[in-house]
Amino acid sequence: MNSEGEKELPLEKRVILVVVDGLGDRVVKDGKTALGLADKPVLDELACAGSTGLMSTLGRGVIPGSDTAHLAIFGYDPQLYYRGRGPFEALGVGVKLKQGDVAFRFNFATVDSDFRVIDRRAGRLKDEGAELVKSLQGMSVEGVEAIFLSSTEHRGTLILRGDGLSPAVSDTDSHSIEPATVLESKPVEDTREAKKTARILNEVVKRSKAILSSHPLNKQREREGKLVANIILTRGAGVYEKVESLKDRYGFSSCCIAGSALYKGVAKYVGMEILKVKGATGRLDTDIEAKAKAAIQALEKFDLVFVHVKGTDNASHDGNLEEKLFMIKKVNRLAEILKEEDVYLVITSDHSTPISIKRHSSDPVPVLIHGGSVRKDKVQFFDEISVSSGCLGHLTGVELNRTIVDLMGYGHMVGS
Amino acid sequence: MNSEGEKELPLEKRVILVVVDGLGDRVVKDGKTALGLADKPVLDELACAGSTGLMSTLGRGVIPGSDTAHLAIFGYDPQLYYRGRGPFEALGVGVKLKQGDVAFRFNFATVDSDFRVIDRRAGRLKDEGAELVKSLQGMSVEGVEAIFLSSTEHRGTLILRGDGLSPAVSDTDSHSIEPATVLESKPVEDTREAKKTARILNEVVKRSKAILSSHPLNKQREREGKLVANIILTRGAGVYEKVESLKDRYGFSSCCIAGSALYKGVAKYVGMEILKVKGATGRLDTDIEAKAKAAIQALEKFDLVFVHVKGTDNASHDGNLEEKLFMIKKVNRLAEILKEEDVYLVITSDHSTPISIKRHSSDPVPVLIHGGSVRKDKVQFFDEISVSSGCLGHLTGVELNRTIVDLMGYGHMVGS
Repeated sequence: MNSEGEKELPLEKRVILVVVDGLGDRVVKDGKTALGLADKPVLDELACAGSTGLMSTLGRGVIPGSDTAHLAIFGYDPQLYYRGRGPFEALGVGVKLKQGDVAFRFNFATVDSDFRVIDRRAGRLKDEGAELVKSLQGMSVEGVEAIFLSSTEHRGTLILRGDGLSPAVSDTDSHSIEPATVLESKPVEDTREAKKTARILNEVVKRSKAILSSHPLNKQREREGKLVANIILTRGAGVYEKVESLKDRYGFSSCCIAGSALYKGVAKYVGMEILKVKGATGRLDTDIEAKAKAAIQALEKFDLVFVHVKGTDNASHDGNLEEKLFMIKKVNRLAEILKEEDVYLVITSDHSTPISIKRHSSDPVPVLIHGGSVRKDKVQFFDEISVSSGCLGHLTGVELNRTIVDLMGYGHMVGS
Repeated sequence: MNSEGEKELPLEKRVILVVVDGLGDRVVKDGKTALGLADKPVLDELACAGSTGLMSTLGRGVIPGSDTAHLAIFGYDPQLYYRGRGPFEALGVGVKLKQGDVAFRFNFATVDSDFRVIDRRAGRLKDEGAELVKSLQGMSVEGVEAIFLSSTEHRGTLILRGDGLSPAVSDTDSHSIEPATVLESKPVEDTREAKKTARILNEVVKRSKAILSSHPLNKQREREGKLVANIILTRGAGVYEKVESLKDRYGFSSCCIAGSALYKGVAKYVGMEILKVKGATGRLDTDIEAKAKAAIQALEKFDLVFVHVKGTDNASHDGNLEEKLFMIKKVNRLAEILKEEDVYLVITSDHSTPISIKRHSSDPVPVLIHGGSVRKDKVQFFDEISVSSGCLGHLTGVELNRTIVDLMGYGHMVGS
C-alpha cells in the first residue's frame, strides 16, 4: 500500500507503451517496407520473444488522424470522445480548460489590407509569439472571453470561454498554398450556438488584425524588411468536455513522455501526468537516451508510462527514407534500454505514413507485446508483413488498450 | 484538370476491380478448392507480388446475396442501403426509377384456370416477352401506375409507381418446383402502405391473367402445343431510394462492365456508368478478351473500372467443377491482359458458391491487391487457403472498399 492507501501495482505488471508515430509503411525498396529494411535487432528480438500482430487503429480502411488514433490507443473511442483537435493543442501547451471552452489552433500570419494572405506563417515567426499574444489578451466579444496562447514558432491556441458556444464552425485559415483570402468562419450546423460562435470568431480575427498591425514588434519587423504577424488564422475548432480519467476508470496511474504538444494534450485529456524531459523535442534530434531514462524513472511512480516518438512521422511526411530508417534505429536503441526492465513493453504506432505518399494512410501498423508470460508466437521480425501472422491477429486501438489493461490486472470481467 | 475543371486522377492511382462471382469454394478434390486445383499462373503471380487476404463480404458467417455483396464491395453497407432486389433488376435493364417506386422481378408463367402453376417459366419463353408486355402497359389500380418491362427469356420487371407504396409485401411466386398455386401477396408489416401495395399487386397479377390469356401470341403457342405465358408471378419487392453516388461521396468517376442485369443495376444505383461490351454475356461463353479490352479503354475516362465475371457462379450453382475451372482459366486470362496496366488491380469475389452444395455460403473469399507500392506479403498462390495468411488479414466488403478508396487518394482522415 502506498501513502494514499492504494494498492501498488507490482513492477512486473506495469507497462511502458511506446507509440512510434507514422511508423507503418508500404513497399519502399526491394519489396520491403521501411521497417523491413531497417536495422533493428532489438525490436526483432522482442518480436521473437513476445506476441505480435497488426492494428488498424480506428478500424480497417479508416485513415486515422494523430489525435483520434491516440485517443483510441488510450481506450477512448473517438466516435464518443473526439470533439476536435483544438482542446488537445491547448491542453498540450499547459492551458487549464473549463467545460464548454471552444479551442482553436491558430497561426500568426501576414495579410494585406484586403485580407489576402501573403504568408500563412508570417515568415515562420521565431519567438515573437509570446510577446504578441500579450497585446491580444483581455478581448471580449458578446460577453465571451478570448484567451490567446503562443506555442512554438508561428503557432498558438485561442480559447473562447463563455456560455452557449459550439465547435461546429469552419476555419478562417484556408490551409491553401495557393493565393487565398482570410475565410469567414461559418456555422456548420444550424444552431444558435454555432452561429454565435462563428460571429464571435470572425470578430476576434478582425480585432486581432487591428491590434497586431500597430504592434511595436511588427513595426520593427517592417523596418527589418520582414513579414509582419498582423493577424491570427484559426483552425481545428474543438470543445472541451471533461472525461473520466484513466485513474478513475481503471484505477491505475499513468504519465506521458512526449516532445510535441498534441500528444501531451491527448495524454492530459485522459488524465496522464505530463513529464518534462529535457531533450525530448518531437523531432529527429530527440534525445532518445533521455526519454528512455525518464521512462525507467517514471516506472517507480506510475503504472503506465506512455512514450511518444514523433520523428518517424516527420521523416515520412517529408518522404525521407533515410531519416525514417535513422529514427527506427533510435527506436531500436530505446527498446534496447527499456527491455532490461521487468515490465510489459508494448511497441506500436498510431498510423502508417507511407514514404511513397507522404500522408497518413489506412495501412495497418505493427504491434508487439513483450513481458510477463504473454504468448510467444512464431514471428521473428518486427515488420508489417512478419507480424501479420502474429498471435494477436488484427486489433483496433481500443482493443489493444483493453488487452493492455487486462495484462495489468485492471480489466473488468463481463459476466461472472 | 479535365473539361469539368475537376482534378484528374493519375493513371497509377486508378483501379480495376474484378469481382469473380461465386468464386470461393470448399474442398472439391484432393483436399483442394476449385481455385487450389485451377490452372491460374497469372493470378498466382499477382498474389506473389501484392497484398492478399480473405473477405467475408457481409461479416463472418453471413451468407451474402449477390446484390447485398456488391453493395458492400461498392462501400454501401447493406444494412443501411438494401431495400430489396427489384430496383437493381429494374435499373439493370435500363429503367429510370423515381423515388418511392416499388419494383419486382417477375416471370411469365403458365397457370390453369384455378391459378395452379403448370410452369413457373412458361416453357422457358424465348423472345416473346417484349411483345407480351406491350399488352399489359397502361394498367392503373387505385391511381397507382403499373409499368412492365421484359428482360431475357421469361424474365421481366414490374414497377408500381404512385403515392403511399411499400416494399413490405410477400411474393406471388411460390418459387416451388412442387405443385403450387399462385400465392396471394400479403403485407409483411402492419402498415396502411403495405396493405395497399399487396392489394394493388394482387389485382395487377389477376389482370395480367385476363389480358395475357387472350393474347394472340399465346393463342399461337397453344396451336403449336407450347405452354402459354398467361400470367406474371412476382418476387423480390424493393423500393427505390436515390442514394449519394460514388462521385458525390468521394469525387471519383466509375463505370461497370458486366453481362447480367443485376450487377449493372447495383452499379447504376451507386452512380457508375454502365458500359456496353459486345460479347459480355454473364455466361460461360462470355468474351473475356472483349471485357479486358473494354476495361483498359475505360481507364482513359474513369477512375474506377468495375468488371464482373458471372460464369463461375453459374458453374457452381450447377455443381459443375469442370466449368468452374474453365471459367477460372478465363479469369486468369483476364488478369494476364489487365496486369500490363500501371493501375491498382483488385481481384476478389462477392461470395462463395461451393460446388458441393450448389448455393451461396458464408465461406470467405480470396482478395488480392496489386499495384503501386502496396505491401508485398509472403503468399505465393491465389487460393482460399494460401491467402488466409496474407497481410490484408480478414476484411468485410465495406472495409475492402475503404481500403481501395484510400489507395486512390480519396479517403477522408478521421481526426487530424
